[in-house]
Amino acid sequence: MTTTTKELRDQVLAARAASRELARTSTAVKDQALANIAKELTAREKELVEANRLDYEEGKSTGLSETLLDRLLLTPDRLRELSRDVLSIAGLPDPVGETFDMRTMPNGLQIGKRRVPLGVIGAVYESRPNVTIDISALCLKSGNGVVLRGGKEAIRSNLALARLVQEAIDRAGGPANAVQFVESTDRALVEEMLHMRGLIDLLIPRGGDEFIRYVAETATIPVVTGGVGVCHTYVDLTADMDNAVAIAYNAKVQRPSVCNALDTLLVHSEIATRYLPQIGRAWGEAGVEMRCDERAYEILQEVTGARVVRAKDSDWGKEFLSLVASVRVVDGIQEAMSHIETHGSGHSEAIITEDYSLANTFLEQVDAAAVFVNASTRFTDGGQFGLGAEVGISTQKMHARGPMGLKELTSYKWIILGKGHIRP
Amino acid sequence: MTTTTKELRDQVLAARAASRELARTSTAVKDQALANIAKELTAREKELVEANRLDYEEGKSTGLSETLLDRLLLTPDRLRELSRDVLSIAGLPDPVGETFDMRTMPNGLQIGKRRVPLGVIGAVYESRPNVTIDISALCLKSGNGVVLRGGKEAIRSNLALARLVQEAIDRAGGPANAVQFVESTDRALVEEMLHMRGLIDLLIPRGGDEFIRYVAETATIPVVTGGVGVCHTYVDLTADMDNAVAIAYNAKVQRPSVCNALDTLLVHSEIATRYLPQIGRAWGEAGVEMRCDERAYEILQEVTGARVVRAKDSDWGKEFLSLVASVRVVDGIQEAMSHIETHGSGHSEAIITEDYSLANTFLEQVDAAAVFVNASTRFTDGGQFGLGAEVGISTQKMHARGPMGLKELTSYKWIILGKGHIRP
Repeated sequence: MTTTTKELRDQVLAARAASRELARTSTAVKDQALANIAKELTAREKELVEANRLDYEEGKSTGLSETLLDRLLLTPDRLRELSRDVLSIAGLPDPVGETFDMRTMPNGLQIGKRRVPLGVIGAVYESRPNVTIDISALCLKSGNGVVLRGGKEAIRSNLALARLVQEAIDRAGGPANAVQFVESTDRALVEEMLHMRGLIDLLIPRGGDEFIRYVAETATIPVVTGGVGVCHTYVDLTADMDNAVAIAYNAKVQRPSVCNALDTLLVHSEIATRYLPQIGRAWGEAGVEMRCDERAYEILQEVTGARVVRAKDSDWGKEFLSLVASVRVVDGIQEAMSHIETHGSGHSEAIITEDYSLANTFLEQVDAAAVFVNASTRFTDGGQFGLGAEVGISTQKMHARGPMGLKELTSYKWIILGKGHIRP
Repeated sequence: MTTTTKELRDQVLAARAASRELARTSTAVKDQALANIAKELTAREKELVEANRLDYEEGKSTGLSETLLDRLLLTPDRLRELSRDVLSIAGLPDPVGETFDMRTMPNGLQIGKRRVPLGVIGAVYESRPNVTIDISALCLKSGNGVVLRGGKEAIRSNLALARLVQEAIDRAGGPANAVQFVESTDRALVEEMLHMRGLIDLLIPRGGDEFIRYVAETATIPVVTGGVGVCHTYVDLTADMDNAVAIAYNAKVQRPSVCNALDTLLVHSEIATRYLPQIGRAWGEAGVEMRCDERAYEILQEVTGARVVRAKDSDWGKEFLSLVASVRVVDGIQEAMSHIETHGSGHSEAIITEDYSLANTFLEQVDAAAVFVNASTRFTDGGQFGLGAEVGISTQKMHARGPMGLKELTSYKWIILGKGHIRP
């Protein structure tokens, strides 16, 4: 089925009209809709896995990369996890209507803020079908309409999921039209969405580096960009060795295809001969290829089982999304932070240290959405940060930074209560 | 003097470099710089008023409107007011470094947010020279670099003020380069600023309707638009008559050239014959022209001293910025809110009522940056809202809405403190 410009516009207008109703829908109805979604995600497991199998097989036959295939896959386990995420969103407090910062000015005027939905969110994303659920659920709870445009490679999975969401809202007595899924995968429609000023209040693009750059340079509607994570972990001289090995291993190996996985390991020169062989052996067993600067190469090439090559210039500041890491030996925190400033994407950066002052310096001076001390960058995630889920991870500073949950999908209005106040 | 593309870029880069230093400058140094600015604004009164006189006379001779001339004017009184604003900004808490929402997750990971400056703010504005001071002072306190590009008609005033600011920062031992003023008034440079992705973190355009629309449709860097205020005041059947007259009078007459002044008066039909003659006489004495719908016209044409004409279609949703108001009789709050939804610009809207439920309905359903009950829309202002001053008034929902002060010029980073945490 092909969506035309006219149909896209109609869908956006339908989401817009429904969003006005959703903005005033009670928390109880919204939570019931979420409970329905959670239930159906497991109840319709067979149907969903089957739709996904067709996408997956087509992806495989058209040569989709392992990374993209992994992102595309829906298993019963992943569906159960998704279902739990949706339930946890239902359990979070409703952000809409919260009144805060209320105070009485010297002239007796009461002034405060009341939280309101943004309006209509546009989401343009690639292979991961779970995004359809995460974004729908967060928009629903935060009272926003949403226009979803998923990737071609997940079209059957997405259609099945979007239908499930609409039916779940409808059964709860909410405005099902608030969630619209654009069936066409024609790229021209994305370009149109990027210029729908006054119709789409915020666009969230999720995808690779190139796609995000295209959106950022093209859009004339408000956009929150992010998702591209070139993540560094710096192991200082003062690191606890066991922590440093466990964290770098986890950050690279636990799920290499995602944005918060480690890309570059920076190691203090005075600890390199002790630390690198340990992480080199562990990574080697896990199949991690290490692209090393000269000093790291000299140490690691001696390590049995380590898969070592010399790094090219393009291996710094690169998001690998696979079992590859670049490794560099530095002479201290200043060199590490300057490497991060040059090559980081402002996503997630970590230091491993037992030194109080160094930890503070890193927290203060590194400019990224998430700055870690003694923890794996894999924690940068809406669920892990207590937001229930995320519509995306912002690497810009405007509006929201890092994982975006319910609050990040809202705005506020000032409310001013007077007793006949006039300005002198 | 003409600024070229190269010079503009150099200025932005200089602001960027200085902004990194400013981000770490102590509150004491920033407040000293602000105190220096406040002092010099009155100490150099003669010099500033003289520079402004040249701008004003040139503006008058080139036929600048009364509205723009009023915005351009710097008097000793206005300088003293500006000086007080700067001092009040110095007295506000420093937003930078504030750590908030810190909590310990079930796994023991401590997660929170720390407030950071946005980076470099671009400000493009028209005639009002006080904007040079307000924006510089707010950026300084919030640790942001700023690139100011003021209007041609205020160039001498702005240059004198920008120089004053830089000297004040320098004398306090801060990075004077953090404040850059673009001397050229070539429009092509504005267009370049709108595309300086990665160099300017947020652009704040201030000016008329047409200019704001141009920026919104052209910019590919983050922008907060606003300032255009088509403000309605709805007088319900349940209004206190004295309040309703005093508030509408104040909202229109106290300073008609600014964005939060009343543009359209909506009056409940059952109170119109009682209310309209009162406000008609008061406005008539103040010289306010009333552009009326048929029902309002019939009542007001009988009122001695009222200046009444029939409204054209274009008089609804129009920002008059002068002693003109459109007046319409409506049959209740629903018709009033629907008029506001159609014609409002999302700036400031007011209801005058003694009815509790109607007040709540209006607060809940009107979608604007500031929603008032029984007060003049003239209060929408950073100073009046307790923010010290404002860099602008946002009518968009992303990032910030309404008057933007210090907090609205910041972002945050997530900080995560672990003890060797890895993701299971």
